[in-house]
Amino acid sequence: MSQRLVLHEFAASGNCYKVRLTAALVGKPIERREYDILKGETRTPEFLAKVNANGRIPVLQVGDRFIPESNAACFYLAEGSSLIPLDGFDQADMLRWMFWEQYNHEPNIATLRFWMTEIGVDKLSELQRMQMASKREGGEAALKLMDWHLNGREWFVGSAMSLADVCLFAYTHVAGEAEFDLGRYGAVEAWIERVKHQSGFLPFDA
Amino acid sequence: MSQRLVLHEFAASGNCYKVRLTAALVGKPIERREYDILKGETRTPEFLAKVNANGRIPVLQVGDRFIPESNAACFYLAEGSSLIPLDGFDQADMLRWMFWEQYNHEPNIATLRFWMTEIGVDKLSELQRMQMASKREGGEAALKLMDWHLNGREWFVGSAMSLADVCLFAYTHVAGEAEFDLGRYGAVEAWIERVKHQSGFLPFDA
Repeated sequence: MSQRLVLHEFAASGNCYKVRLTAALVGKPIERREYDILKGETRTPEFLAKVNANGRIPVLQVGDRFIPESNAACFYLAEGSSLIPLDGFDQADMLRWMFWEQYNHEPNIATLRFWMTEIGVDKLSELQRMQMASKREGGEAALKLMDWHLNGREWFVGSAMSLADVCLFAYTHVAGEAEFDLGRYGAVEAWIERVKHQSGFLPFDA
Repeated sequence: MSQRLVLHEFAASGNCYKVRLTAALVGKPIERREYDILKGETRTPEFLAKVNANGRIPVLQVGDRFIPESNAACFYLAEGSSLIPLDGFDQADMLRWMFWEQYNHEPNIATLRFWMTEIGVDKLSELQRMQMASKREGGEAALKLMDWHLNGREWFVGSAMSLADVCLFAYTHVAGEAEFDLGRYGAVEAWIERVKHQSGFLPFDA
């Protein structure tokens, strides 16, 4: 019945960590296969033909089928678990935060972190360097919105941890690596500690 | 039982059209309230406090609650309809295309269309003008991937139209307004016609 689960990943990517964290929280064992994205290992003809024509990780392999996009992979793993609320409005509200994460949070905070810690600011293109200020501004706005939303709330949706928290946690808790000062966002800091103390929690470097 | 549905929108936005199209396909009546985003009407204190602290449209109002993010609003409207596959893998695969749309398609094709048709190329900032080439390249890559995926398939997921098709249709069928040549993508063109002939289909300008 249960099919083999393989995570095709670059372990330092927060998008890949999301999938590992979801699997740990719902108690599903996954195999891991590492690709060095800096060496183009997800752009080989074999990877494009077999794993993901979009040339990106993470991809969750389920038997002989593949699910690209981190948040979709998390949704697959979490189906039937308490990480997906049963109520229809809450489920849509959870997805709202997950879409927001991919549009307003990840392209700012995760991209800055990747540029600063994996590529190195001195190796960026002129266009990338010119975008740093707007990504800094977008990242601060994202953290501010999270902080505002979490003021008086324990979790992003309803009264329990959901995939919205898992997917937002991944890049938020390491935002300091991109020189965002989480000390300015007290509700976010408290929420990070709350996630870390959940049963089944798995650290980024585990 | 059924709550009042109000779409807070800017009608020319493809993200807003997605929500109208979903509502039409599932036969749910929605009220529409227009905001001129070019005049900052979604950044007023009232809008930020009541409708969406993120200052963006579309937002679907359900009774006195609000769902921002177009794809999440579509998911809410389509729950229990044939637009969301019942199979767990297919449901995750549908979300995969919806997340891909927001990350790889919309920021390239929709942003170029907005810059070219709503703002005007001569009014763009230097940074925006510098990004046009990479957005052009990203948009072509997105259309190429869609064309490759649709080769031999009628719909993005499984054997029936799903929200993946609805959400991808919105900005794809008007990509020509951003000077993308859809004639180069035959499978995409055939799929656009397929969507247009679905029962309940609603045109962009309806």
